[in-house]
Amino acid sequence: MLIELDEVARDVTRHIDRVLEPLGREPLHDAMRYASAGGKRLRAFLVMEGARLHEVEHACAIWPAAGIEFLHAYSLVHDDLPCMDDDDMRRGRATVHRAWDEATAVLVGDALQSLAFECVLDPAVGPGETRAALALGLARAAGGQGMVLGQTLDIAAESSDVPLNLAEITALQAGKTGALIQWSGTAGAVMAGADTGPLERYASAVGLAFQIADDVLDIEGDATITGKAVGKDVAAGKATFVSHLGVDGAKARARALVDDARDALSLYGAKADGLRALAGFVIARTS
Amino acid sequence: MLIELDEVARDVTRHIDRVLEPLGREPLHDAMRYASAGGKRLRAFLVMEGARLHEVEHACAIWPAAGIEFLHAYSLVHDDLPCMDDDDMRRGRATVHRAWDEATAVLVGDALQSLAFECVLDPAVGPGETRAALALGLARAAGGQGMVLGQTLDIAAESSDVPLNLAEITALQAGKTGALIQWSGTAGAVMAGADTGPLERYASAVGLAFQIADDVLDIEGDATITGKAVGKDVAAGKATFVSHLGVDGAKARARALVDDARDALSLYGAKADGLRALAGFVIARTS
Repeated sequence: MLIELDEVARDVTRHIDRVLEPLGREPLHDAMRYASAGGKRLRAFLVMEGARLHEVEHACAIWPAAGIEFLHAYSLVHDDLPCMDDDDMRRGRATVHRAWDEATAVLVGDALQSLAFECVLDPAVGPGETRAALALGLARAAGGQGMVLGQTLDIAAESSDVPLNLAEITALQAGKTGALIQWSGTAGAVMAGADTGPLERYASAVGLAFQIADDVLDIEGDATITGKAVGKDVAAGKATFVSHLGVDGAKARARALVDDARDALSLYGAKADGLRALAGFVIARTS
Repeated sequence: MLIELDEVARDVTRHIDRVLEPLGREPLHDAMRYASAGGKRLRAFLVMEGARLHEVEHACAIWPAAGIEFLHAYSLVHDDLPCMDDDDMRRGRATVHRAWDEATAVLVGDALQSLAFECVLDPAVGPGETRAALALGLARAAGGQGMVLGQTLDIAAESSDVPLNLAEITALQAGKTGALIQWSGTAGAVMAGADTGPLERYASAVGLAFQIADDVLDIEGDATITGKAVGKDVAAGKATFVSHLGVDGAKARARALVDDARDALSLYGAKADGLRALAGFVIARTS
């Protein structure tokens, strides 16, 4: 893993553990801890690096960084449910509904979504205006015109006989993964009251490159490394970036997006090297 | 229905419709509208009346009033799922997972939770500090130490051989329904920056009375009026306020709570007559 990403991941994970520790000892709480463990913490990295670029204090940025990881964890727990993607493995372990049961998995996801807002709204983050702006942006990115809409379109596409075209796949992914990555990439600028334009462009390109790389990993990946099932898209006859562009075409598209993402960072100079490295990592990763 | 409650319900429902209208025409959006329709709007009434007591403008209060109804609607959709209470009817119609499917019901609940935060954080509500305080309170009330914890304890109790004692039932209900009613009752005071103490006491008593009345309705109610199945608690051998106190004892306890709720409002004079009437309605209702 990318060294900078690894460092931030450990830092954010420590904060996540501190937030979860006092919750209690009900099975719900244990399952919330289980669901929040592991992962690359890529979204948190975007928050922390965007904050660092704008000289936002670590003690402020660590809360939304943890918050977006709780929100991401909630989405994975619900996506894995039998009525959705019906997955048995996630991050190399049994999914929450396999390790506990479906009711617990629904409730864990629900509670993690609330917890995400609790973190983003923590008084340590900054003035009320800042916290309200961050949380409002998160609600919009996560909801029925953002992530949840993307997941809905994804499920609808699976049961349809007409495969999605490239524009439809791009729109679907803009919701499903793009909206939260965009929120993460711009959170630091929002906290600083700075122009979010350059980081919006960066996050938009990185988000799409990430999803294209995910489609490639479904073909070329190793389940023991990705920590989840592979070959599912092809088995399901699903339209993906790879089914439209081929593996080589998809990789070329992802590389072009990484170039665009790096271009967007030019005004930040060397301070943005972490974000530049991340853009490359996103398409070079094996999990 | 109580006249004042009916008026506020129509007003808040109009706002809810306005919020939902521009969402889109995907099945997800139709199901969000379906799930948000109907209901007594009791939580919204608490918000609106608490706001009126503190001279908070209608145009500010209507947003958190709609928000809490979206949050409540989300909780009903998820509670009704086959892996939870497995209900076919809600508000006199098919539940969302029966009218659509389970995946849609999970996603509708998820999106309605996000939408609740969007409403509470809407710039029309007031300054950032106010919106952040309201939303942070909502996140805490809804999450793994509030409503979701209550629902978890409820499910655990159903599969346990040891019936809950009265203190445990009270704690369960304080989470499952009490936390959101408390938030609703105090939202107006929070918006005005006023002391939340009296309304906290009022809402706490009303919330518990509401739940006791719900247990009585499960025995004495008529499914064609309540809009949901009745007799379920007895059939499931569930410990409730009625199984511990008997129907008459439960009713006496609820009446005492209503008296306490009304006492808590004394400093507000006649302006609080709407809230006084609601406290009585909560135990006199037939649905």
